[in-house]
Amino acid sequence: MEQSKVGRYKFMAEPFHVDCNGELPMNVLSNCMLNAADFHSDARGFGITFLRENKCTWVLSRLAVEMNRMPYQYESFEIETWCEKIYRFFTDRNYNVYDGQGKIIGHARSVWAMIDIDTRKPLDLLSVQSGRLVDYVDPDLECPMEKPSHIKLHEGKLVKEYTSQYSDIDINGHVNSVKYMQHILDIFPMEKYKAQRIKRFEIAYVSECYYGNTLSFYKEEPEENISDIEVKCNDTVACRSRVVFENK
Amino acid sequence: MEQSKVGRYKFMAEPFHVDCNGELPMNVLSNCMLNAADFHSDARGFGITFLRENKCTWVLSRLAVEMNRMPYQYESFEIETWCEKIYRFFTDRNYNVYDGQGKIIGHARSVWAMIDIDTRKPLDLLSVQSGRLVDYVDPDLECPMEKPSHIKLHEGKLVKEYTSQYSDIDINGHVNSVKYMQHILDIFPMEKYKAQRIKRFEIAYVSECYYGNTLSFYKEEPEENISDIEVKCNDTVACRSRVVFENK
Repeated sequence: MEQSKVGRYKFMAEPFHVDCNGELPMNVLSNCMLNAADFHSDARGFGITFLRENKCTWVLSRLAVEMNRMPYQYESFEIETWCEKIYRFFTDRNYNVYDGQGKIIGHARSVWAMIDIDTRKPLDLLSVQSGRLVDYVDPDLECPMEKPSHIKLHEGKLVKEYTSQYSDIDINGHVNSVKYMQHILDIFPMEKYKAQRIKRFEIAYVSECYYGNTLSFYKEEPEENISDIEVKCNDTVACRSRVVFENK
Repeated sequence: MEQSKVGRYKFMAEPFHVDCNGELPMNVLSNCMLNAADFHSDARGFGITFLRENKCTWVLSRLAVEMNRMPYQYESFEIETWCEKIYRFFTDRNYNVYDGQGKIIGHARSVWAMIDIDTRKPLDLLSVQSGRLVDYVDPDLECPMEKPSHIKLHEGKLVKEYTSQYSDIDINGHVNSVKYMQHILDIFPMEKYKAQRIKRFEIAYVSECYYGNTLSFYKEEPEENISDIEVKCNDTVACRSRVVFENK
């Protein structure tokens, strides 16, 4: 069955997933986007079935999300996803988020690579499956938000240390990509989430951390309402994030 | 539309939810059960619509889960749920878990109360909605596992302290019931989960904790492979849990 270039998937803001405001937190919404990416690529022959047979895996490199509002407890929402561009080693995948009434409430942009599980080397996406990935690229669909930025800290201050536990570790033995987001969001006090909302969230993954590693979180504020965070493990950068708040 | 007494709901073991073994952790599976309970009661007129209109809420008092195996990454599974009994202030709700092939892989039993949001007092379940809850009770459907036990620690040892953060807090300002489970599971090292599996998990909620509260986790092992855990906050018991492991 031929698949369209765009996939659209339904989700619900589960009661035990929402935050103190009754809204989906950014890490849970991002997890839904990663699931949508998974469903979309699997239906087009580049998902878990293909990956298992070819001993490779998709790796999320960057994610930037911009939301006008977050889905509220019990609200149904939909995520639309498509590939905007394929480079040799990376693909740009975009997302639109629709509320229960079909109104767009946000967007996201992500960058992915496909790596060989054994060598951890990236595969040439233009030649995987005889280049069939390119057939699904839709360069014209609009995703009206800035691309992921290059986050660079100058004098970050150590604000938190955290040692990874059982619940942080994924099937590959690494700290789960979504868990980094949660630990970053937990740097900010609940009072801040009561008074402000996250307008834009970005994360860029640099290197993997493992069970029992101590993660150090450094933070600086280049501008009012913008926090840049660098997570380090044994002096190596694991990921960087930018969180942009705005008053409610 | 008349509803049957039993509800059955489909879930999938999401890739960013599975643990180091590629299996759904007990807290995530329990979350699915709580969602199934929600869907079941809402379809029968005792869910979120009713609760909102009547300013009351279901409160989970106890949960006991027994699994032969956990759903594996990407596996579809189904949860069947029904009410076994209604008492004045509590209801016994049971669950069967089916794997993708329709084979039962586990069971659970839970105890719930319905409380008034303002007074926090329990409602008389036999008179709520003119006693209509009783119409949905199925006392005959089998749930072949022991009821939740009364966990009592004698000389628990302090094994962990944790201060609740943004991601722990639910819409009511309390530490989320599912998050307690995660923090309890995180007491055990990853190596234990590699060598053993959880055969039975129990939790009983006693009192609520809030943002910024420091939770103290006390543990004792009444028998080999059985860990009893008591979570306290300011010397008051928040919840108690029993985790029963077995070798793989």
